[in-house]
Amino acid sequence: MPASQTPDSPRTLAELGEDAILDRLTRAFGPLAGTGGALMLGIGDDAAVLRADSGQLVITTDTLTEDQDFRPGWFSTPESYGESVGHQAVVQNLSDIVAMGAHPTAVLLSLVLPPELDADWVDGFGAGVAAALSAAGADLRVAGGDLGAGPSVSVSVTALGEAPGSLLRRDSAQPADVLAVGPSSPGAARSPLGSAAAGLALLEAGMLASEVQRPYLAAQLYPSIDVSAGVRALAAGAHAGLDVSDGLLRDTVRLASASGVVIDVESEALRAMVTELEPLAVALGAQEAEAARAQAWGWLLSGGEDYVLLASFPAEAELPSGFTRLGTVHGAAAEAPGTVLLDGADPAAVLKGTGWDSLR
Amino acid sequence: MPASQTPDSPRTLAELGEDAILDRLTRAFGPLAGTGGALMLGIGDDAAVLRADSGQLVITTDTLTEDQDFRPGWFSTPESYGESVGHQAVVQNLSDIVAMGAHPTAVLLSLVLPPELDADWVDGFGAGVAAALSAAGADLRVAGGDLGAGPSVSVSVTALGEAPGSLLRRDSAQPADVLAVGPSSPGAARSPLGSAAAGLALLEAGMLASEVQRPYLAAQLYPSIDVSAGVRALAAGAHAGLDVSDGLLRDTVRLASASGVVIDVESEALRAMVTELEPLAVALGAQEAEAARAQAWGWLLSGGEDYVLLASFPAEAELPSGFTRLGTVHGAAAEAPGTVLLDGADPAAVLKGTGWDSLR
Repeated sequence: MPASQTPDSPRTLAELGEDAILDRLTRAFGPLAGTGGALMLGIGDDAAVLRADSGQLVITTDTLTEDQDFRPGWFSTPESYGESVGHQAVVQNLSDIVAMGAHPTAVLLSLVLPPELDADWVDGFGAGVAAALSAAGADLRVAGGDLGAGPSVSVSVTALGEAPGSLLRRDSAQPADVLAVGPSSPGAARSPLGSAAAGLALLEAGMLASEVQRPYLAAQLYPSIDVSAGVRALAAGAHAGLDVSDGLLRDTVRLASASGVVIDVESEALRAMVTELEPLAVALGAQEAEAARAQAWGWLLSGGEDYVLLASFPAEAELPSGFTRLGTVHGAAAEAPGTVLLDGADPAAVLKGTGWDSLR
Repeated sequence: MPASQTPDSPRTLAELGEDAILDRLTRAFGPLAGTGGALMLGIGDDAAVLRADSGQLVITTDTLTEDQDFRPGWFSTPESYGESVGHQAVVQNLSDIVAMGAHPTAVLLSLVLPPELDADWVDGFGAGVAAALSAAGADLRVAGGDLGAGPSVSVSVTALGEAPGSLLRRDSAQPADVLAVGPSSPGAARSPLGSAAAGLALLEAGMLASEVQRPYLAAQLYPSIDVSAGVRALAAGAHAGLDVSDGLLRDTVRLASASGVVIDVESEALRAMVTELEPLAVALGAQEAEAARAQAWGWLLSGGEDYVLLASFPAEAELPSGFTRLGTVHGAAAEAPGTVLLDGADPAAVLKGTGWDSLR
């Protein structure tokens, strides 16, 4: 931003002022801040107005806060800090819309920013939001928002979508279903489970990432999603689905609990992903192969922010492209509903040899 | 809450844990957290699903933060603190929906709470949200939300509504329109402009409020709204409208600017309100009648959080019940569009005698 490189230009949000902040954001959003798509009336009135053609509106909200979801120290400039926060906040919320089997249509943003924040943060944030929305679909819009002051950065996003027909709920997985996980971007060959967690570990270690490690940082800082995963899963006959955002095991337990079933995950399906993550664990100081494998299993099973779709399909269904089979669904006869197994046994016992259980 | 009075019960949110916090909130919301009204699928999945019968969905979001919008020191218990925040956050957002001429249908809540916060805060917050929603309409629901940790309390609310027909936009006031302000609750005789600001001054002064002063505290801490004001204004033929939340003058300037008109406010219409506010100013230390009157004008014209509807009606329209005529709309010939006058002149000049201008 040339304006911010002249010595007299405002350096902090307090110097910039609310109107100028909103101007900068609106400029960064570009056409995404105008009406179009489902957005009939956008920024500038008391509230936004959207068309809801199907009569079924899907809506979610989440807040990301400094030091909980991101750290200023990860970034070399205020602009890259803002860009990552904008990107993460949008993707996290769109992922919830996708996981309902809906098309995202718009987001609203509510920002709490400290007055001493560098003004360039705003430009980066706007660019990050715009990039994440543009990647997700041409018809997405920024419908509105709010700006306030507070002690640290906090970004609340509300995402909206439309569900043209049935929904992908989490309470309807059926015995004999196949469990599968979707890709992290359209056209990606397979899911990146554990990549964002590995990227987080690199960031927390403060390491300068190598060329090979950079995609893991990107998975954490600039996550992508496959915006049609939910709609494609429904078209393939999926019975149930949810967003993997708090770690594969935890979200699989949620699916099993909500549906009253047992889910058996096959470790075979995950081994290729573990193998790919192991060098990161070594680079981060794992001394032995076993410790590296344990760390990789930890990222894969318990890491968060994967933003992929976990869905259960009838056994005879053909999985949508980019989906990877992970296991099977059983009725809750021998085990309690909500139980998740790994190769038919307690995950902690199966992974004992890998040392994984000690990382829980 | 009896559970929190036993010595072993959790005292902080960290001790309570996320699941118990959500349980407590859901209990406090009661039937408001279940499906019904427009809510087809609520808390518990990736996102909520709402019916949008009219095909026109109205949506807004706002964040309230500690020390910006409320102070812990105003409250004698964590429960009353939470109750006020829940109440304020809901009303502030519903007011924006009402000001579009829409019926509110649901809210989503995204909470950032410090781990050391007293667990009773949660019960109070739930009760405040429930009270504000119940007062606003039987069909309103809590559709979903999010819970995270942060350094201080921050509450983001997204409110949704349905607009059955035309909208009450802010850009369509017409020359010769009559400007009027709506009441603060259904059936109230007149608007309470400045009451919340007077209440805030009492709180900031740390005074123990007298019986007479308590309604002003309530206007600040537990604001009410007339949820049908927008729909009734549209039915009466209103051309334009917006929510008065940042002070009458500032929001009148917004209406005039968006519509490209000049608005002339009549001081006569406001004098009864000023007279009512003067004793508060005296109680807060205004030494002379003139100073008290100046303070009252300040609250009325520049105070915030009134949450009433400011609308412009055709001259021949009959104002809806509870609406007070405040002035007239003119074409922008002599003055620049967006200008607001008081009795045909610059508000600062007119109020010079009252000392009001020095308070700006």
